[in-house]
Amino acid sequence: MPPLHQHTFTKPDGRQLVLYARAPIDPTIVATTPPGGAAGVGGSHLRWHPLRGEWVVYAGHRQNRTFLPPPEWDPLAPATNPDHPTEVPAGAWDVAVFDNLFPALGTGRVPAPPPAEIVPTAPCGGTCEVVVFAQDANVSLGQLPLDRVEMVLAVWADRTAALRARADVAYVFPFENRGVEVGATLAHPHGQIYAYPFVPPIAERALELQRARPGLLAELIAAEVAADARTLYVGEHAVAFVPVCARWAYELWIAPRRAVPTLDALAPEERLDLARALRLALRKLDGLWKRPMPYVLAVHQAPVHGDHAYAHAHIEIYSWARMPGRMKFLAGSEVGAGTFTADTLPEAKAAELRAVETTDE
Amino acid sequence: MPPLHQHTFTKPDGRQLVLYARAPIDPTIVATTPPGGAAGVGGSHLRWHPLRGEWVVYAGHRQNRTFLPPPEWDPLAPATNPDHPTEVPAGAWDVAVFDNLFPALGTGRVPAPPPAEIVPTAPCGGTCEVVVFAQDANVSLGQLPLDRVEMVLAVWADRTAALRARADVAYVFPFENRGVEVGATLAHPHGQIYAYPFVPPIAERALELQRARPGLLAELIAAEVAADARTLYVGEHAVAFVPVCARWAYELWIAPRRAVPTLDALAPEERLDLARALRLALRKLDGLWKRPMPYVLAVHQAPVHGDHAYAHAHIEIYSWARMPGRMKFLAGSEVGAGTFTADTLPEAKAAELRAVETTDE
Repeated sequence: MPPLHQHTFTKPDGRQLVLYARAPIDPTIVATTPPGGAAGVGGSHLRWHPLRGEWVVYAGHRQNRTFLPPPEWDPLAPATNPDHPTEVPAGAWDVAVFDNLFPALGTGRVPAPPPAEIVPTAPCGGTCEVVVFAQDANVSLGQLPLDRVEMVLAVWADRTAALRARADVAYVFPFENRGVEVGATLAHPHGQIYAYPFVPPIAERALELQRARPGLLAELIAAEVAADARTLYVGEHAVAFVPVCARWAYELWIAPRRAVPTLDALAPEERLDLARALRLALRKLDGLWKRPMPYVLAVHQAPVHGDHAYAHAHIEIYSWARMPGRMKFLAGSEVGAGTFTADTLPEAKAAELRAVETTDE
Repeated sequence: MPPLHQHTFTKPDGRQLVLYARAPIDPTIVATTPPGGAAGVGGSHLRWHPLRGEWVVYAGHRQNRTFLPPPEWDPLAPATNPDHPTEVPAGAWDVAVFDNLFPALGTGRVPAPPPAEIVPTAPCGGTCEVVVFAQDANVSLGQLPLDRVEMVLAVWADRTAALRARADVAYVFPFENRGVEVGATLAHPHGQIYAYPFVPPIAERALELQRARPGLLAELIAAEVAADARTLYVGEHAVAFVPVCARWAYELWIAPRRAVPTLDALAPEERLDLARALRLALRKLDGLWKRPMPYVLAVHQAPVHGDHAYAHAHIEIYSWARMPGRMKFLAGSEVGAGTFTADTLPEAKAAELRAVETTDE
């Protein structure tokens, strides 16, 4: 794979933009920003939830954020018309990353102390970034060529390393909300990165369990490969499978076979094989009913602080549909008790996905 | 309050039906069952999720369950036409409870051993019940008169005590999924009770935190009452408030002021005041935009086994809307990391609800 080039720009409102491509980036490109934003206004704070033992983030300035603009207003399309600046400039680049105009995390430009309250409160450090997967608004992550999916993994890795270096970041979480069914407010293919000032509860729990039993996920992967009932891709360095304990009907885990704590620790051949696994998984999901599957894609990694050599970075995809047009609703059992009840068996769903023929175009 | 009468019946397919009223129930009422069901078919099993450290329930027989039938097929309406039997009989009763035809929990009539898998598996004991709040399909829980809301609390308490006596039940969880937005498949006002064979993760976490600091919720309630910023109802025995750490825009906690581990431990005057608090909270939610608010209502109680004198039973309501017609989507941060980011402050949402005028009709 050719080397990945990148260049960092500053938007007119002070936010950062990083462009990535296989060729050197033109440094004379001018970063743009759409009108109507309010960068850095507000700022979030944390409150402690005493019955769940977790932080809740309050970002009051986000209530009126952009909501499904018509296609001609796509703020993630390259700004080809100077009268209509968007979030990303025209020019030769493949992937773009910029600071979210409406970040859920971060203290804002003029940090205010958190309110004194009847539970502990704290300033909310960290930041939120937007990752534009392609200039073309009509493709999806899974439709990209292999080298471009590999580039997205490389960008996640690069941003992970960059954000982990910040003093106010404890955990870096790349993810994608795909489809209006999961609240995606823009159709243009993109993901997000949340850099939290604390370790979120699901990550904390997974790390605690892996620390108690190093090799946990690697053993599960070996067992899935041996069982050969739920795997979709078994490569030399990476696998994709419906896990035996799937909580969603169409849940997929995509993992390197070797346990590395964060994506930036992958060797180039491991990252390429992980891209193959991810791309195949996404194509299986969209091929199943010949329509885009709504999903949340979550990249699980190790926290910034401490020694987490035992942690096994991987990707989990939670599809929101349980049948064509029928969504899985999170309701009483999931939201109030924390227990998922699946109406389908992972083996049956894996068999459906294994039968989907995908092309390599 | 007059005494609560009840009578237990057996449906033609063997399932249990309990009718409740303020007057004695006619024991000659004949329990009915709608056609097309498959009671006891299937059965669920559990699989251990090694990265979350929790059980996942697999109920493959539920995939094709009843889905939003037209009003004339309401299976929760009293069976007045012998040609169209429903789940509840005609007659003088106010609240009905019956075994769910498509239970997510339970081993089924002919229990099968759980499959051997690459993670631990177990049979899924427990059961699921449906609670019909009223014969009238066009009311809601909050619209009922005070004595009828009190009756629903008394029925939850009665079923909690009855289900806790079962050998295969470790935790009793009454809840209501209200509105198609949270997956309610029937419009008729009703709730459900899940009796789990294990203690679900959210309950386990809350109990661990309360055990570590007895009086946790009672102290929070006292602080909310003193702050007077988020309370909707402050009675002698019960309160309703938007918690300082609300994760949802319109989240309400309704709690007895005295810590009791389960609803059946409430004194009659405490239960009546809790009904007042709950009814007011529900009327505030529906009055806010003059339209039914979609929500999940969860009753948090202590587990069956062990000494949980420190536990403080209460009700939490999570409203799915964040603005009229705009839903809160659970996406990357909530589903993949476990962290809620609220776009609004609890104080602001409480002020909106405090301003809603409710009638006592």
